[in-house]
Amino acid sequence: MSGITEIIGRIPTVNRTLQAEVSGHLDRLTKPPGSLGRLEDFAVQYCCVTGTTKPEIRKKIIFTLAGDHGVAEEGVSAYPKEVTPQMVRNILVGGAAVNVLARHAGADVRVVDIGIDNPMEGADGLIRRKVRSGTGNISKEPAMTTDEAEKAIEAGINLARGAASEGAGLIGTGEMGIANTTPAAALFAALLPCEAGEITGRGTGIDDAALARKKEIVERALALHKDKLADPLGALAALGGMEIAGIAGLILGAASCRIPVVVDGFISSAGALAACRMCPKVKDYLYFSHLSHEKGHKVFAELFGVEPVLDLRMRLGEGTGAALAMSIIEAAIKIYNEMATFDSAEVSGEHS
Amino acid sequence: MSGITEIIGRIPTVNRTLQAEVSGHLDRLTKPPGSLGRLEDFAVQYCCVTGTTKPEIRKKIIFTLAGDHGVAEEGVSAYPKEVTPQMVRNILVGGAAVNVLARHAGADVRVVDIGIDNPMEGADGLIRRKVRSGTGNISKEPAMTTDEAEKAIEAGINLARGAASEGAGLIGTGEMGIANTTPAAALFAALLPCEAGEITGRGTGIDDAALARKKEIVERALALHKDKLADPLGALAALGGMEIAGIAGLILGAASCRIPVVVDGFISSAGALAACRMCPKVKDYLYFSHLSHEKGHKVFAELFGVEPVLDLRMRLGEGTGAALAMSIIEAAIKIYNEMATFDSAEVSGEHS
Repeated sequence: MSGITEIIGRIPTVNRTLQAEVSGHLDRLTKPPGSLGRLEDFAVQYCCVTGTTKPEIRKKIIFTLAGDHGVAEEGVSAYPKEVTPQMVRNILVGGAAVNVLARHAGADVRVVDIGIDNPMEGADGLIRRKVRSGTGNISKEPAMTTDEAEKAIEAGINLARGAASEGAGLIGTGEMGIANTTPAAALFAALLPCEAGEITGRGTGIDDAALARKKEIVERALALHKDKLADPLGALAALGGMEIAGIAGLILGAASCRIPVVVDGFISSAGALAACRMCPKVKDYLYFSHLSHEKGHKVFAELFGVEPVLDLRMRLGEGTGAALAMSIIEAAIKIYNEMATFDSAEVSGEHS
Repeated sequence: MSGITEIIGRIPTVNRTLQAEVSGHLDRLTKPPGSLGRLEDFAVQYCCVTGTTKPEIRKKIIFTLAGDHGVAEEGVSAYPKEVTPQMVRNILVGGAAVNVLARHAGADVRVVDIGIDNPMEGADGLIRRKVRSGTGNISKEPAMTTDEAEKAIEAGINLARGAASEGAGLIGTGEMGIANTTPAAALFAALLPCEAGEITGRGTGIDDAALARKKEIVERALALHKDKLADPLGALAALGGMEIAGIAGLILGAASCRIPVVVDGFISSAGALAACRMCPKVKDYLYFSHLSHEKGHKVFAELFGVEPVLDLRMRLGEGTGAALAMSIIEAAIKIYNEMATFDSAEVSGEHS
């Protein structure tokens, strides 16, 4: 934990002293004050997080972290476990939804093996940070050891810090891992907290019988590991998965470099929640990209008090929501930078 | 009306026979079926409207129609009337919000004088289609004659048809006109129909006293012109404005060329409603870009049964919402065109 504790210690509280200056500039632009709504909020947040009144998003990077889940053997997903490595290869060659949407947004996609249960031989371009080959079945054993959870978090931290040294101005989270709505639901239940029944949904599309079983599995995991769930690291180790722990680390690492993070959907939000429970002030660094159609995401958004950027009933993960929202956030920064002011455009202000 | 009637006669019913083929392709892409939510719906709609299973958005054009309003003299806006020509000049030189967001989306902005109360001398790049110099004060007289309303609609039709011959694949609506939430509210009240009180809001940001007065003005206009509001053309002529009639025409013209239209916010929706009342089947050609923060827009969306793409509490007009939504719709088309299929990527399907 010492590496993680040290990084958390370096995370600055987001400084709102710039807010008045940034809002003042937005109010001088040729539009009624506040009329661009949340776009204005996004620009203010970006400036306050990065500590500048001259924001610039040089590089946008989405990290898609992939890991496998022992609990997949319980039949909690509509897809077989081999889809994780198959989809990772698909992302590496640019054929997945996240590739299409990231290209559209002008963002890079980096694919990270943080725990795929497959050697991934010959997978060119794959960033190899495997902690172990898949987690344990959380309904019977811990997902991983505390040491492994720390390694996964540290992998995320280091990816973010590497992105910072490359000049990243916005980092997106994403994931791939068959069955990972199950550990995500368990984590939400433990850390929000909330009832397993209200947070557990259909994931990639399971039927009623499988959903009932999935809820039972989540409840069993929560009961089995109940003594370890009081702290977020313990909960991550007990319930998994490695990609979720990695996303928590990505957020902590980005915040330590004052880089805002665009959180993808349901799974990524579980990682974000864990990061916020380890260090509450990182919440101010986050944009929640979209409200997932996975039913528990709304429960999370309400209980945690966040308002996602988009609501398009998407439920794919990978970083797809992050990619779309990055483009909206970049639009907000361009508004701040590129619009004329009332003075420069010689436009009259409001009736006095 | 003959030119308009002829164009309406040429508008094809959107053919849903392609839907099965388009949805089938979307289901073969490497993602759980339906997991991209509304993005998939947007792609299906685009294919059905344009009549192709090989969609391509070559060119995106936003038309920002500008006109003045006699009712501005009643103090219904936070801004003086001279802001209309000033903002039009600002858009022409690229300094307005719509310019920034359209550049971000890769769309062109075309600014049209359809009724500015100013000669607009030396305004380079302005498309000149002035019907008259500002409308009449609708609380005392008709906004315009029926002949003028027809001319405004026809101007919109011809702009859309010109865009079609340029290769436009997506047309966005936008407007600029100080005080134009007043005629828009009156039109909604007449054509939805609904109560003036529930549809009339703060526009660019008026205070409580001005809002009360604005509601009274809308009610007075509705009472004064009550005999003319049964048909949409009569309502447009009585209540205005020219940019709203022009937007109705833009939609009819685009539909006659099978081009989908992205409707901006509150004012543009009034134009869209008028177009749909003239020709109900054009509704299938429309994407409603965003839910405006102007309070009546929600009333419209619910009563008319449409679900906007975005909800960012924007209330600026100009085409700003259309620009942002165009980018989302284009992302949907790219998903359809660029993603790998389960077969091509050798990814396993669902458990059978």
